[in-house]
Amino acid sequence: MRTQVAIVGAGPAGLLLSHLLARAGIESVVLEARSRAYVEQRVRAGVLEHPTVELLREVGLAERLDREGMPHEGISLRFEGGDHRIDFAGLVGKGITVYGQQEVVKDLIAARLADGGDIRFEVSGVVVEGIEGDAPVIGFVDGDGQRQELRCDVVAGCDGFHGICRGAFTPQVFDREYPYAWLGILAKAAPTHHELVYASHANGFALYSMRSPEITRLYLQVPPETDAGAWSDAQIWDELGTRLTAEGFTLNEGPLIEKGVTGMRSFVAEPMRHGRLFLAGDAAHIVPPTGAKGMNLAIADVRVLAEALTDLLVHGDERGVDRYSDTCLRRVWRAEHFSWWMTSMLHVAPHGDPFDRRLQLSQLRYTVASRAAATSLAENYVGLPHAALDGGLRT
Amino acid sequence: MRTQVAIVGAGPAGLLLSHLLARAGIESVVLEARSRAYVEQRVRAGVLEHPTVELLREVGLAERLDREGMPHEGISLRFEGGDHRIDFAGLVGKGITVYGQQEVVKDLIAARLADGGDIRFEVSGVVVEGIEGDAPVIGFVDGDGQRQELRCDVVAGCDGFHGICRGAFTPQVFDREYPYAWLGILAKAAPTHHELVYASHANGFALYSMRSPEITRLYLQVPPETDAGAWSDAQIWDELGTRLTAEGFTLNEGPLIEKGVTGMRSFVAEPMRHGRLFLAGDAAHIVPPTGAKGMNLAIADVRVLAEALTDLLVHGDERGVDRYSDTCLRRVWRAEHFSWWMTSMLHVAPHGDPFDRRLQLSQLRYTVASRAAATSLAENYVGLPHAALDGGLRT
Repeated sequence: MRTQVAIVGAGPAGLLLSHLLARAGIESVVLEARSRAYVEQRVRAGVLEHPTVELLREVGLAERLDREGMPHEGISLRFEGGDHRIDFAGLVGKGITVYGQQEVVKDLIAARLADGGDIRFEVSGVVVEGIEGDAPVIGFVDGDGQRQELRCDVVAGCDGFHGICRGAFTPQVFDREYPYAWLGILAKAAPTHHELVYASHANGFALYSMRSPEITRLYLQVPPETDAGAWSDAQIWDELGTRLTAEGFTLNEGPLIEKGVTGMRSFVAEPMRHGRLFLAGDAAHIVPPTGAKGMNLAIADVRVLAEALTDLLVHGDERGVDRYSDTCLRRVWRAEHFSWWMTSMLHVAPHGDPFDRRLQLSQLRYTVASRAAATSLAENYVGLPHAALDGGLRT
Repeated sequence: MRTQVAIVGAGPAGLLLSHLLARAGIESVVLEARSRAYVEQRVRAGVLEHPTVELLREVGLAERLDREGMPHEGISLRFEGGDHRIDFAGLVGKGITVYGQQEVVKDLIAARLADGGDIRFEVSGVVVEGIEGDAPVIGFVDGDGQRQELRCDVVAGCDGFHGICRGAFTPQVFDREYPYAWLGILAKAAPTHHELVYASHANGFALYSMRSPEITRLYLQVPPETDAGAWSDAQIWDELGTRLTAEGFTLNEGPLIEKGVTGMRSFVAEPMRHGRLFLAGDAAHIVPPTGAKGMNLAIADVRVLAEALTDLLVHGDERGVDRYSDTCLRRVWRAEHFSWWMTSMLHVAPHGDPFDRRLQLSQLRYTVASRAAATSLAENYVGLPHAALDGGLRT
């Protein structure tokens, strides 16, 4: 079996890359370890940046997103009992769209299959070889248990943080583990508020968000080793009420659909390319979820990669692939910094001294009071323009 | 001996307070441990914020400042070999003025003495008593070795970080020591550049500033326990050249007039008032010098204090003194945060991991590229308006 681009992983990065390549007349095959049903149900991120939405519109993938996505024009920062709205629309003239990652994945799979795209679900034993030459080979076992070989010009590693592609070379690794985690719940409760609320309370961080007119998604900062089962539903609602408190805000409660603990880490592998292997999305970098950047970075990566591969495979021009890693890493580090900044400003460090807490509160007060500071938060949150970052961040 | 306000310390805070009180018809006596010559020569801070200059003008203290002070309309951030100017004038329509703290002190002493002000130099053995009642007493030994008693309505503790006033009660202390110090030199060398240059180099931070058309002031980040004598002049110039490097920039060298190592710390005592004792300036808070905020905070404190004491002593209204600590602490924590932010962004942590350095560089690139981020730096550096901060920072 042969294709031009072998894509490992059918998450947003791999599927969008396949779509973008097809538009440029480049063939690809997507290999995915899980079933179609699994990836279409996997609840992950839910915030699309402005440039992400623009890109999805540009490439014909936004029909349902435009119908069902929920545009948000701001967020609230809540601390010391006060609620402070950061007005994205007023500050930077743009907003975000709440639309689950699994919905993006459903749209992408439907589009690829309608276009005759080749996605192989439930493959196993994926092995990547020959990336230092110009004829890599991917070995795998298909859904019927047959060993297969996929010959290609280029391999795109879109297989996530736990994927195998990053292991095919030894990038330099930069990482940070945070001394806290998120206890997240999905509840059948009508939204209390139409935008996201980020609360920094002395007890710790809390996040309120809506997923649909019937579903609320909420998070509590907890110690990293927390067992979700140790928190009763009543305790969770009680603590959420405490941390999210503000005048005129009463949290709507409802039955829990899901409950789980997520770790918080920052991770970057450099470079994002080795020979004919290109990493994209979580395979190359992880951000803590506070800045809502994970899926958006993955999408930004494959936009750059699709253009670079078009230059290489259609025009024989290597300049794009040679720049790929540096171009992506500028945006990646911007997002790593923003995510670290939001995380550090809002969470209570378990062994933090009172000096740290005072700095946080001063930072929060300043961020909501200064137009410049609020604009800085807003422009990062809604997403710095792809073109500005590619060209060295001239905003 | 009796006065209305006994002021301990003849630095910028104590002297300006005495001046402001005199304008309101309130008597004060200033007690200072050092000689007049000593305090007039003591080289400390050199950057006056915009609101500081405005205040000094308003109260008739800016005649020489307006003639000899050097207005700067920006600073440079230098990293990865590039020079990036933050254009204060263009971003916020204001600038800073370079004018040594010792010049401010000279002007203040001259003004007080011309107005018949009472400053006692070279006093020792100062003891503050009775601050919990309404008739405090300060005991001290005057310059002639005579023990004296100064009865007063209010004591202003303007005696710096190592002063005795803060010890008269037990405020809560917030502090942070940084794992680096500054090796500072004063050199007889014509300025290489007309504005301050803040450099973040892999070897560590460096700061270039001019003090006059003949004198340059330069700093290098060094380990905290550094002995200034261990660095030869040639080594210092060499390292400054390395860290401050940029296209078209050649550092003018010259003989060293002074060489010393300064520690870096953040410190805040809360509250800043206990009974009839009011702390102002370094007696209550210290910032690392990176943000150039120390003297400006001291001046902002005594502006608030002079108004509060006028209300108390002229009109019998206690509301101002009751608000004094909270009002000042809002500005203090803003400056603590800004100073910590500038310091952390520019210095290389000795045990910092590569992740930290990547975050710093992303932050620096963003700060110089984003108008919002540059404006945020500029508005803090030139000084947030006194009125805005007093009223809860509505900028």
